[in-house]
Amino acid sequence: MSDIPFFVLVRPQMGENIGSAARAMWNFGLDRMRIVAPRDGWPNPAAVALASGAGRLLDDAQVSPDLPDALQDCTYVYATTARARDLTKPVLSPEEAMRDAALRIATGQKVAVMFGPERAGLENEDIARANAIISVPVNPRFASLNLAQCVLLVGYEWMRASGEVVPRSDEMAGTDWAQGVEVEHLAVHYEDALDEAGFFFPEHKSASMRTNLRNMWSRMPLTRADVQMLHGVMRQMVRWAQKRG
Amino acid sequence: MSDIPFFVLVRPQMGENIGSAARAMWNFGLDRMRIVAPRDGWPNPAAVALASGAGRLLDDAQVSPDLPDALQDCTYVYATTARARDLTKPVLSPEEAMRDAALRIATGQKVAVMFGPERAGLENEDIARANAIISVPVNPRFASLNLAQCVLLVGYEWMRASGEVVPRSDEMAGTDWAQGVEVEHLAVHYEDALDEAGFFFPEHKSASMRTNLRNMWSRMPLTRADVQMLHGVMRQMVRWAQKRG
Repeated sequence: MSDIPFFVLVRPQMGENIGSAARAMWNFGLDRMRIVAPRDGWPNPAAVALASGAGRLLDDAQVSPDLPDALQDCTYVYATTARARDLTKPVLSPEEAMRDAALRIATGQKVAVMFGPERAGLENEDIARANAIISVPVNPRFASLNLAQCVLLVGYEWMRASGEVVPRSDEMAGTDWAQGVEVEHLAVHYEDALDEAGFFFPEHKSASMRTNLRNMWSRMPLTRADVQMLHGVMRQMVRWAQKRG
Repeated sequence: MSDIPFFVLVRPQMGENIGSAARAMWNFGLDRMRIVAPRDGWPNPAAVALASGAGRLLDDAQVSPDLPDALQDCTYVYATTARARDLTKPVLSPEEAMRDAALRIATGQKVAVMFGPERAGLENEDIARANAIISVPVNPRFASLNLAQCVLLVGYEWMRASGEVVPRSDEMAGTDWAQGVEVEHLAVHYEDALDEAGFFFPEHKSASMRTNLRNMWSRMPLTRADVQMLHGVMRQMVRWAQKRG
């Protein structure tokens, strides 16, 4: 079953906040939590203490060492951010995003929402793995949502949106969308081949070039067939170069 | 000025929760707090500690000994409740209530929203002083919103309803989208290079492979920067092959 989105806590720090996030989710019937590299390890007694009544979410949570592992079976990923970022991706309100998510889930997609660590929020490198950004519209002079509150607002909008889904029957229904792990492999394939070919030059631009490439892949609505074709494209260019060599 | 609703905390217990409620309010530009008979007296250092950044709301809060005093100048009052009550009053969702509040305020009414004490919530006697009830729709098997979270959700809906929303840039506003002619050049570039590299093989599949590639480019939401990067990727692979040749 994946009739609801996964909520992915990325490198959460305080166990208390993980527990509070679980409670916030379960208020809106959301019980699929994933946790990436929790600072204080796992399981976490402080999380359990704060989750009272929603402890089952912690028992069932999938804990991953890194973000690609957590997103490997997801076909569409949202990243929540407080500040606007200089990353070319759709920026949606929580309402728009959860309506979009409900439509995607109705057509069989596996959807995840990422939440960053308490202080710093998501890194650009994390956001590069998202298809779209969720920005909560708050007072520009005072934006101080904590982790559980951010989870609460998105969960609230999920509940509102999921009650009014009209399945979008036509638009690309039945499409075999690429999963996170497939896009990840594609990104790695290109990065490795381009590295070998000397693409990431000059050195001081290398990191941002890699991020830009990542961003592009994750922003594209890639089908499995697209991914296979793009693998083929790069494989052929490498084979050709090697034949000439 | 009463262009925003008052949020009235009725007999709040923990100072921490009063401070958190202040922060939750100020996230959505709400700064009119009233407090009725706070359990631990007033001022409350724990409230100040938790309100960091929103301390002004506490300084300006009007503290009343009882509810009639707190509501004396209000013309329309909402009561938030977790459970349905056997009280004949309109029951509204947070969204409906804050839309209603925005309309009332626009016509000069003075509006208040009451929030009950942490554990028990509002008494029937309190609710009897309200014109309408706000019920937050939560998981019927798990309703565990704390005071600040309840304030947060109503504040969020106020911000949405009041149109004070920070104008959200249009979806990917400012993005420099690739034009048709640019995507066409990209498609030709890839097709030519892949042709040279022997990608379109076997011959009888060549036409459909070309079509699939075209289809993919035209389905992608490509920016100008994407197009330039994709040109660079292919240029580099060709250059690399030629160097080896």
